[in-house]
Amino acid sequence: MRHIPVITDILEYNSAVAADVRKAISPRVLTLNLISSPGAGKTTLIERTAAALKGELRLAVIEGDQATTLDASRVAAQGVPTVQINTGSECHLEARQVIAALSQLPLDDVDVLIIENVGNLICPVEFDLGEDAKVLVVSLPEGEDKPLKYRPSFIAAQAIIVNKLDLAPYLAVSADRLCQFIGTINGSARIIPLSCVTGEGLDVWLDWLRAALRAKRAASRVS
Amino acid sequence: MRHIPVITDILEYNSAVAADVRKAISPRVLTLNLISSPGAGKTTLIERTAAALKGELRLAVIEGDQATTLDASRVAAQGVPTVQINTGSECHLEARQVIAALSQLPLDDVDVLIIENVGNLICPVEFDLGEDAKVLVVSLPEGEDKPLKYRPSFIAAQAIIVNKLDLAPYLAVSADRLCQFIGTINGSARIIPLSCVTGEGLDVWLDWLRAALRAKRAASRVS
Repeated sequence: MRHIPVITDILEYNSAVAADVRKAISPRVLTLNLISSPGAGKTTLIERTAAALKGELRLAVIEGDQATTLDASRVAAQGVPTVQINTGSECHLEARQVIAALSQLPLDDVDVLIIENVGNLICPVEFDLGEDAKVLVVSLPEGEDKPLKYRPSFIAAQAIIVNKLDLAPYLAVSADRLCQFIGTINGSARIIPLSCVTGEGLDVWLDWLRAALRAKRAASRVS
Repeated sequence: MRHIPVITDILEYNSAVAADVRKAISPRVLTLNLISSPGAGKTTLIERTAAALKGELRLAVIEGDQATTLDASRVAAQGVPTVQINTGSECHLEARQVIAALSQLPLDDVDVLIIENVGNLICPVEFDLGEDAKVLVVSLPEGEDKPLKYRPSFIAAQAIIVNKLDLAPYLAVSADRLCQFIGTINGSARIIPLSCVTGEGLDVWLDWLRAALRAKRAASRVS
């Protein structure tokens, strides 16, 4: 049972580095930590977001994956400054990896920094990356019961995107019931059903993002 | 960097307990460790397998989840002896949890023991549960690139099920390309595309399972 205090050490070290990340990033930049199961649609959401906000807000992206630069290539094709972190056998991003990536991004020319975590609905939530908000993506094909079974990630999120609404006609899954289950686990998160294929609901997500950026900048003027 | 040797300790301890699991389970019982992302369809596959093999082979199931007994209830409704392990904040099953569950199953009257791991495409593969084979489930909506991005789990599996074939017409994902990518990562695994909704391919999976059981029993007679 030696491992429990050591895990605490890792988390304490990570929290200290996350504080450094917050200091390193301008208070005018909104930083989001995007978390989901593998294949829930994080990268596609980033692609659609970048395309929709072109000319309005400047994005930068940090991509976390065990292996490959596939996701970074997709995002960079949208003209977005992107850094890929390959975690090898690790199942989540840590703040020390984010702080190393920051120097490779033009942060003076960025409004929103999106950190796409490794596809994993459990482990990433433990590690503060210095973000302003965690955004969870859950997709309809994963089923209605995921909020009940993976509570910590759903509890920690400020916004929860219910993705792949376009598949609803072909699944024995109710988007309404999934949203209700999310509401019982996390009553304060903004729940945003959408489809990156049809574009339905994307405007609600973009408005949430704009409002979060405004709130961050307003708070920085006060403090 | 203190944590690396400690992680090794955990894995060594787990391997020792996994050996005890193998000793505790009769050589006439085939034990499978079922691994996938959240919502790839592990529980539905077990339900369909139990229904199809009723009267032919006797199943028992150990269900791993962070929380709830939802999956155990679904499987038990098929008349299958089932134990639920709730892992709390943990992201995977360990052999010590399996050995504790064994005493609650009628193993003298079982042909196939299926251990459904926590929904996570990364961490479970590190922990030997005393199984004869790892079976990976990946579903079409997760996308074609998952074998390339989550290599260790794909490499470790003896059978890889490509699930939710029925959704192919509604996705920009090719089942053929996904199978090809799996083949480049693991050339020896049996790749089994199927749909638990239409039943397509289920016979191939059941034949693989029957053959694996025969091979286990034949090996136990030789040794």
